Amino acid sequence: MATPKIEIDTLYDELLAHLQPKNSRRLLVSALESFAAHGFAASTTREIAERAGMSPAGLYVHYRSKAELLFEVIRIGHERVLDGLVATANHPGSATERLRACVQSFVAWHAHFHTLARVCQYELTALDGARMATISQLRRRIQQQMEDIISSGIESHEFEVSDLRGATRAILSLGIDVARWFDDDGPVSPDVLALFYSDLAMRMVGA
Amino acid sequence: MATPKIEIDTLYDELLAHLQPKNSRRLLVSALESFAAHGFAASTTREIAERAGMSPAGLYVHYRSKAELLFEVIRIGHERVLDGLVATANHPGSATERLRACVQSFVAWHAHFHTLARVCQYELTALDGARMATISQLRRRIQQQMEDIISSGIESHEFEVSDLRGATRAILSLGIDVARWFDDDGPVSPDVLALFYSDLAMRMVGA
Repeated sequence: MATPKIEIDTLYDELLAHLQPKNSRRLLVSALESFAAHGFAASTTREIAERAGMSPAGLYVHYRSKAELLFEVIRIGHERVLDGLVATANHPGSATERLRACVQSFVAWHAHFHTLARVCQYELTALDGARMATISQLRRRIQQQMEDIISSGIESHEFEVSDLRGATRAILSLGIDVARWFDDDGPVSPDVLALFYSDLAMRMVGA
Repeated sequence: MATPKIEIDTLYDELLAHLQPKNSRRLLVSALESFAAHGFAASTTREIAERAGMSPAGLYVHYRSKAELLFEVIRIGHERVLDGLVATANHPGSATERLRACVQSFVAWHAHFHTLARVCQYELTALDGARMATISQLRRRIQQQMEDIISSGIESHEFEVSDLRGATRAILSLGIDVARWFDDDGPVSPDVLALFYSDLAMRMVGA
């Protein structure tokens, strides 16, 4: 039924380059495709293995369970987003420049990797307690990165914000929801969208 | 395993008051709870019937299939949102006043009915072609309501917007994503959030 998704492998090649051997990477991409297509609950290790062109037994060489695959997908997604924010947040420059760069990084990522991003956001509740705790910590760090920049812009009188926590959540929320509706074949590219959304974010913080 | 969700019945009582008899309503609420909990693909008519305190055969008296239940859930959700927008959009008043009212209606709805709203947004792809066409039409009308108000505000020089379609999509997207993260036990009420988001929308259109 399902054939290996070579083109998707290519999309995720750089993102998952650290994952060795290649079969681990294929299985992870196959799992995220399956979770995105019909959710964690309806996905089976058999189907995930088949999508990757492997046997079910072959899957267990690399991952203990479907739950471990979900955790790895969600962990890697969150870590890459955080990496992008940290890299731009630490640039020299005004709060305005740093917020622009962070929103652009965040939005472009959610557009480019929309399938992965959807799994990261919508399948969270299927994680068990310990794994959820790890992801919650990553989510708090993502929120803190954005909040720190907005906070520094308020201090420097670049921004005018009545509710720091609420404005941070709204800007992140706007970026996350890109993963829901973004269409690879649509008229807007991830980079153009990222630029437009950084303009909107500037308005939202009253820059 | 699953017991009838009486408190949820109460939440949806007014929204679904037109659905008669009561067992149709119970089944619909049970279906949306099941779809929200583990997705359409992993939900079964047996489980949906049991959640509603009925037998599987009892379900088929009211609905032909799981697919019909999904369609009804998504259709009703979209129609209620559209009703709310139409009611506020047709109020007399400036574009500023009408946009504020529309955003408040949209955001409060997505916070209040976040479980229903999540199913409406995340399970869309499980609809077949003809049913999807009906929902797509409702979605275009929702978008058009919002776009018409923003457009009239640009004409009256109340708003300054470089990309009408993009700004409309962003404001709707911000409201839709409320359904993903809103927490009934959190510190913010739907009405307070709706007010804050209408302030943000004003900034996004450069009011």
